Amino acid sequence: MPQFLKVLNSLQKIPYFRRLFLYLLFMNRDLLIRNVLLEGRSCDIYIKKGVISGIGSAPQCRDGVRTLDGRGMNVLPAFVNMHTHAGMTLFRGICEDMPLKSWLDAVWKAETALDDDLVYWGTRLACLEMIRTGTAVFNDMYWRIDRAARAVEDSGMRAHLTYCFLDGGDPEKQRRQRDECRAMYEASRNWSPNVHFGVSIHAHYTVCDDNMLWAVEFAHSHNLLLHTHLSETQSENEDHGARYGISPTRRLADMGLLGRDLTAAHTLWLSDEDVRLLGESGTTVVHNINSNLKLASGCRFRYNELRDAGANVTMGTDGAGSSNNLDLREALKTAALTQKAWRKDPAALPLDELLAAGTVNGARALGLNSGRVEEGALADLILVDTDSPFFVPAHNFKANFIYSANSSCIDTLICGGRILMQGGRVDGQEEVLARAREEIARFLRKINA
Amino acid sequence: MPQFLKVLNSLQKIPYFRRLFLYLLFMNRDLLIRNVLLEGRSCDIYIKKGVISGIGSAPQCRDGVRTLDGRGMNVLPAFVNMHTHAGMTLFRGICEDMPLKSWLDAVWKAETALDDDLVYWGTRLACLEMIRTGTAVFNDMYWRIDRAARAVEDSGMRAHLTYCFLDGGDPEKQRRQRDECRAMYEASRNWSPNVHFGVSIHAHYTVCDDNMLWAVEFAHSHNLLLHTHLSETQSENEDHGARYGISPTRRLADMGLLGRDLTAAHTLWLSDEDVRLLGESGTTVVHNINSNLKLASGCRFRYNELRDAGANVTMGTDGAGSSNNLDLREALKTAALTQKAWRKDPAALPLDELLAAGTVNGARALGLNSGRVEEGALADLILVDTDSPFFVPAHNFKANFIYSANSSCIDTLICGGRILMQGGRVDGQEEVLARAREEIARFLRKINA
Repeated sequence: MPQFLKVLNSLQKIPYFRRLFLYLLFMNRDLLIRNVLLEGRSCDIYIKKGVISGIGSAPQCRDGVRTLDGRGMNVLPAFVNMHTHAGMTLFRGICEDMPLKSWLDAVWKAETALDDDLVYWGTRLACLEMIRTGTAVFNDMYWRIDRAARAVEDSGMRAHLTYCFLDGGDPEKQRRQRDECRAMYEASRNWSPNVHFGVSIHAHYTVCDDNMLWAVEFAHSHNLLLHTHLSETQSENEDHGARYGISPTRRLADMGLLGRDLTAAHTLWLSDEDVRLLGESGTTVVHNINSNLKLASGCRFRYNELRDAGANVTMGTDGAGSSNNLDLREALKTAALTQKAWRKDPAALPLDELLAAGTVNGARALGLNSGRVEEGALADLILVDTDSPFFVPAHNFKANFIYSANSSCIDTLICGGRILMQGGRVDGQEEVLARAREEIARFLRKINA
Repeated sequence: MPQFLKVLNSLQKIPYFRRLFLYLLFMNRDLLIRNVLLEGRSCDIYIKKGVISGIGSAPQCRDGVRTLDGRGMNVLPAFVNMHTHAGMTLFRGICEDMPLKSWLDAVWKAETALDDDLVYWGTRLACLEMIRTGTAVFNDMYWRIDRAARAVEDSGMRAHLTYCFLDGGDPEKQRRQRDECRAMYEASRNWSPNVHFGVSIHAHYTVCDDNMLWAVEFAHSHNLLLHTHLSETQSENEDHGARYGISPTRRLADMGLLGRDLTAAHTLWLSDEDVRLLGESGTTVVHNINSNLKLASGCRFRYNELRDAGANVTMGTDGAGSSNNLDLREALKTAALTQKAWRKDPAALPLDELLAAGTVNGARALGLNSGRVEEGALADLILVDTDSPFFVPAHNFKANFIYSANSSCIDTLICGGRILMQGGRVDGQEEVLARAREEIARFLRKINA
């Protein structure tokens, strides 16, 4: 790291300089993108204070605004990854080709060694990978979210970071987690405007009823979003049925959890009644196909039924511990392919719905006016370079983008008017990779000590 | 195209100069790769006349040999794509999210417009994409294979190009195809040593018995490999059962088609008896998961059973008309994920078997001593650049390569000692893209005329 960056970095630890740093970051977010292709037509896009303020042949914009040449590029909304465990990127590849039980043992053993620096650099690494693959916003569930918040701010992305309840029925943990949640929420008022605090209930089978109800009440009274795992595996449902005689979704509905403020990840094993409950309540569900396949949880996500019932269907990668990467474009491809196969319908999950699930639906769930390339929307955009064999012939740009190309075609990522990647390069990426490698070496020494 | 290349290109049309050109190509295939990582250890690899002749810290090699710096790279065998329709790359994205019947109508309509230049540039485009994604060898079934052979030679890859019987029971077509097959076989003696002639029976339901038997006899008597589609869809099997009372595999076995010289693509809907027949005969089967999912043909490829029965299990992409790309690394990922999910076993299709299916198994089917990084094997290699977030942490290189990265991590491709790609760049790629675009425009004018 150059000396001046080191000085800047240490200055950031002083609250006053931190606020100044964030202010400077958010000050200049005006940008003019010239000659970019939008739905097949060339246009200019003017971004003012991080919002798309004009699209056309020569939108009105102030003199001297920063200009980006979009010639040969297609513009799309950046992705919204609705279910991640960003810090877990440190465990990518730690255990492969092994049954779930051994996988969980390995990951849980590893997580006991987590500390502030590991979470910070694990999250920076996750952000770098998401930026490289076209994601501007993510909805996360992990530990030490104050450190994760700092990492997201430093990467320039947007995120919802959720405080995660997981008590295993231990009353001491319950008390401690409520206190910690309250304190973290208070501290989150100093986070940048792009990083939001939310509440996670890890799962209905890892959090006791009292704590679940407390968390929901806390979220509702502070206008916070909720996040949980739901019906990821068949055995989870069977265990629940044996104990309660109803499905997990029915129980969450009875406890008042379902609704527009809840994001339920996985929802892979759903009865017709479950689908109806999720739909009627307008709950957001997240399909994490690569993780579901890799851990052999299943693949029959009921996309059509959930969409038709009124649920808000979105897409996620899950953590890199299980799905190995955070590449949402790739996850969209796998999701569409598996829908077509298990439904025996090559017309299932068509491209426009697929892209909406990966962008605007997630934005809606998080209360963001983004996920669209339209005037008035937040300027969270990607520019796609089509000068490669994957885009020849050019019969169908979206099909080429999802089904033919890989994510290295994403040349530029803009988040709220700030360019986070250009020409496939993210500023400071070498530093992030180097520090992440150092932290992983330290982590390995720690768990093997 | 620079003037001297134009001159060279026109000179190639004269047989004498063509042979000189091929001789020059194959003359210098010595190469020394320095400091590359092989299974985690740094080594040098010396390639002599296209064959790996030494691996170690300082293998014996002649002075002045061309040297490649492999620092920071991992070496792996290049992929062998065992089922493609390369020229069909022109139809990538031509019809999306539509039922199979409409898809076939569109493709068959498009194929009536094929001509020599379309096949040549379609195949060049396919080769460019395969090189970019780490494939050195492919097994193809398409039309006008004399033009395809020229395209493969000009790209520097290896291929088995098969003359395709497809008669629909028309006696006139049968006669014409037998004559054409004979003539094409004779002409193939002038192809470069890297391009081989084989015989395809398109499918048991598109070729009449007489022609199938003739093709098998022709292949056996000339020591040629056979290639066919087999049990791709459930309805194909049902129709066959209704007509013959047995499975397609049983019928092919009775007709003497199964054996080590046959490559059967798809084999997705197999009974226990089918698996046994394919295994006992040592037939090569090709799993084309992305195509099977996209066309909603199914996903329950019986990998474990086929492997255990003794079949040679390999991997393919199918044509870009159905699977949209020719990226075998990506296909390997999808194949492993779907095996894990449908078998409900996260340990299914482990990484080493997966990589073998994508490399050495295919090479064995084609009679090539390659698909391994070992002394004496053909030098068909890829160098993988791990300096990206997808390879951090480095707990498991192969898992990162298959499950985390995308194929842009493949920096270098070497085929028989010749460097076809370096730094992600293929010599002449702009020319191929430009000419392919021109040919596609001409093709669209032709079919819309």
